[in-house]
Amino acid sequence: MGIKLNLKSPAVFIGKQGNGVISFGSGQPDLPPPREAVEDIDIRRDLRYGLIQGCLPLRISLAEEYPASSAENFVITNGASEALDLIFRVMDNGKVLLPRPYYYSYPPILKYAGMEPVYMDLKQGRIDVDDFRKKIKECKAILINSPSNPTGRVEAIDTLKEIEEVTEKLGIYVVSDEVYKDIIYERENYIIKGDHVITVNSFSKTYAMCGVRVGYLWSPDQEFVNKAIEMKTHTSMNTNLVGQDMALRAMKSPKSYVEQQLEIWKKRRNLIYQGLKDIGLDLWKPEGAFYVLPKVPSPEKFVGKLYTDYNVIVYLGSWFGAPNRVRLSYALDEEEIKEGLNRIKDCLSKI
Amino acid sequence: MGIKLNLKSPAVFIGKQGNGVISFGSGQPDLPPPREAVEDIDIRRDLRYGLIQGCLPLRISLAEEYPASSAENFVITNGASEALDLIFRVMDNGKVLLPRPYYYSYPPILKYAGMEPVYMDLKQGRIDVDDFRKKIKECKAILINSPSNPTGRVEAIDTLKEIEEVTEKLGIYVVSDEVYKDIIYERENYIIKGDHVITVNSFSKTYAMCGVRVGYLWSPDQEFVNKAIEMKTHTSMNTNLVGQDMALRAMKSPKSYVEQQLEIWKKRRNLIYQGLKDIGLDLWKPEGAFYVLPKVPSPEKFVGKLYTDYNVIVYLGSWFGAPNRVRLSYALDEEEIKEGLNRIKDCLSKI
Repeated sequence: MGIKLNLKSPAVFIGKQGNGVISFGSGQPDLPPPREAVEDIDIRRDLRYGLIQGCLPLRISLAEEYPASSAENFVITNGASEALDLIFRVMDNGKVLLPRPYYYSYPPILKYAGMEPVYMDLKQGRIDVDDFRKKIKECKAILINSPSNPTGRVEAIDTLKEIEEVTEKLGIYVVSDEVYKDIIYERENYIIKGDHVITVNSFSKTYAMCGVRVGYLWSPDQEFVNKAIEMKTHTSMNTNLVGQDMALRAMKSPKSYVEQQLEIWKKRRNLIYQGLKDIGLDLWKPEGAFYVLPKVPSPEKFVGKLYTDYNVIVYLGSWFGAPNRVRLSYALDEEEIKEGLNRIKDCLSKI
Repeated sequence: MGIKLNLKSPAVFIGKQGNGVISFGSGQPDLPPPREAVEDIDIRRDLRYGLIQGCLPLRISLAEEYPASSAENFVITNGASEALDLIFRVMDNGKVLLPRPYYYSYPPILKYAGMEPVYMDLKQGRIDVDDFRKKIKECKAILINSPSNPTGRVEAIDTLKEIEEVTEKLGIYVVSDEVYKDIIYERENYIIKGDHVITVNSFSKTYAMCGVRVGYLWSPDQEFVNKAIEMKTHTSMNTNLVGQDMALRAMKSPKSYVEQQLEIWKKRRNLIYQGLKDIGLDLWKPEGAFYVLPKVPSPEKFVGKLYTDYNVIVYLGSWFGAPNRVRLSYALDEEEIKEGLNRIKDCLSKI
């Protein structure tokens, strides 16, 4: 159809769903949240200012998930985004070691905070430990994201332990973005330990409530946590209370909710991974989250043609620091994934 | 009782209500929100990511309140706090002219954004136009707050027009924090005009929903608005959707809601103003918002003794750049205000 797309950012695809469009674009679960999260919420109770740090019952409940921690170690935030923003603004300046490909908001978040990324190219979608050892010394922090958006990869526990050891010795912060911690296909989540660890998490992906915007940061470094609270006091005050209420209720849903979701994600993962391999694309096997990042020829041309001629949305890898790849989110039902794969195959044959 | 208080910030009084304490501290309405705001909200509709700029129906509804504007001119934020934070982060550097006494979050917000305040001392609680003319030239922006927290004063329309004219000529931003625009006792609100005006507002005070955290910024400078949206895309994403839904419904409540609230505020204003004058305190007459800022002898001693010996909370003026004063919020019913005034009188007689 020859429509010229402005492929500067994912914003180009906003509102472009429906009408037979198959979207592998946006990274949000299509599955429903647990029943408990949306039932019996009395919004009249949630109208007055709350604690900046977050509602105490929610923080107490979270503390049970983190070894040797208390409610004091948490700050409830407007999604993981605000948690990351606060963390790097508290750090204020310096370099941050950043694996590439990366989640597309990381470089701007660092820039807005006055920090500078030092890139570390992934090897087979995972951290290259030698490269990490070489570059970490000049940095104030490392930002890791396992399972990763956009690679779908999960770091080896040995790598995480190596990061623990080196950063602990050097007194360097480890910022661990674990918003996909409950969607790992290969093993249990491993919680990084250390005096300078700051974990970022969210209720968005695990409980399918992205629009509610509730996330949190956790750290045993109480001085750091207190600085984040002080900043949030002025920059946004308490996180919306209805959302915190929903988050607390979601946590009380049966474990089977998360387990059943994981089964669905795994089936889809198998389907899209095999499908893209059968088409002949070169890609890493996703081990967590719900993304694949295959190599494609002429990515810009492919993304443009796929949308204008085939009604299929995929994201350009260059938005994530992966210029010869595209990102597909598989938050779609199996029939849509199959139909999308057919169209992708057809489109690729024309490029 | 001799308890030593740490009077570094208002945080000292968090959770210190109940048990017969009369709190003139926190600045949030004690009145209920309009019925419409909390009825028939279906939170299941509000679970997926929304537009970063804010829900379109809410922005369309707001555009009707601002002359010659459209939904594009607004960004819905996590309260007025996030709006202010985004605005100054977009500006990035430079000086901001700031009337003193000021809302206590202004100096940290400017500092976090890398900006520097240039103070302008108020005269009888209002902007000194000569001082404004002298200091504005070296600044990138002026931040005004009329009606003001903590002074309760409202700027004269002539002053606002003078600010319009001078800033328009020099191309300087006017950031107008109007969260108390619906609580003015003396006249209608005056909306500042100009190509470089950025207005900040909130649903917290007008509709008594502080904890919900919904505010917004408005500007005819579309490029500035777009930069704020781009930043929010990475730093917090969409504002919580349940809150936006509540805000839209609140706007549809009958005008009589706001009018009736205003009558209540006015009665309380008269009561506390006369009461403090009768005690012999020197203070400005509040013309809007719900604060008074009287001079008191030995403010630290007074605030400490008043709390420990009389169970009454008032805030230290020095938190607001007014070291010889204290701030009282009169978001309390008349009986409590009367009892509080009695205790204040008693306490003052002992200092």
